[in-house]
Amino acid sequence: MTQALNPSKQWLWMQRALHQAILAANLGEVPVGAVLMAADDDTLLAEGHNRTRLDNDPSAHAEIVVLRQAAENLAIPRLPGTRLYVTLEPCPMCAGAIIQARIAQLVFGAYDPKYGAITHGVRLFDQTNINHRPEALGGIAESDCRGLLKTFFDQRR
Amino acid sequence: MTQALNPSKQWLWMQRALHQAILAANLGEVPVGAVLMAADDDTLLAEGHNRTRLDNDPSAHAEIVVLRQAAENLAIPRLPGTRLYVTLEPCPMCAGAIIQARIAQLVFGAYDPKYGAITHGVRLFDQTNINHRPEALGGIAESDCRGLLKTFFDQRR
Repeated sequence: MTQALNPSKQWLWMQRALHQAILAANLGEVPVGAVLMAADDDTLLAEGHNRTRLDNDPSAHAEIVVLRQAAENLAIPRLPGTRLYVTLEPCPMCAGAIIQARIAQLVFGAYDPKYGAITHGVRLFDQTNINHRPEALGGIAESDCRGLLKTFFDQRR
Repeated sequence: MTQALNPSKQWLWMQRALHQAILAANLGEVPVGAVLMAADDDTLLAEGHNRTRLDNDPSAHAEIVVLRQAAENLAIPRLPGTRLYVTLEPCPMCAGAIIQARIAQLVFGAYDPKYGAITHGVRLFDQTNINHRPEALGGIAESDCRGLLKTFFDQRR
């Protein structure tokens, strides 16, 4: 059984995800970072950031990068009981990947009213025809996560 | 501009995707296969099948396998103008990946009333908050595509 969310851990792992997002920005990638923790919320399974341009991989959003890395490292096709921390509300592709991976809990930073798929758009985890329903919590370190994205896009306009 | 769909090509490439699905079944993977064609509908960019268990990758559905392979081969992060043939209606993760990759046209075989995300469930391509809207056509070689899946699951019950 996955333990209840711990606010100080949420903050800590979101800071770590933010660090990954900053690395992404420095590489010219959209600054979204993610960290995957084991069910104990103490063991780091994977961390990473967007790398669609770096890898020429349209699926390489931060969430999918860490899911893939953790599943490969653990040599298992799914990641039940794990907790994903990501700096931005997942898009439909990533929300679907989180379900496919059987992740227990999703914690995200900034809300994405435009392309988000958790509390916006298709609200995928609220649909009836899904075979796994992760817990989700948004708005952790929200202003830092959103600020980083805003600065990145402002500089590119 | 991507050309209009050609029924004889649809049948041909769906047979090729079905061949990939049969390879998947022989490897113990859920039999779904995919083929990605260039805008001319003649140049094969990638072909593949589900390999979540083979690769320990929760995101390795047939669609994402071929998108990744084609983008890597072409050294581009997106695949505008391309056509994806897949034996089963894509799930939310794959429907989202098809949008991320900017694929022009999706042709699928069997409908998936349970987990499909094109003509069922969230109907992702019909949503207003998406930044690319692929054309989609389902039901090509439908009974072959569905029959292969049915046989696979019947043998495992």
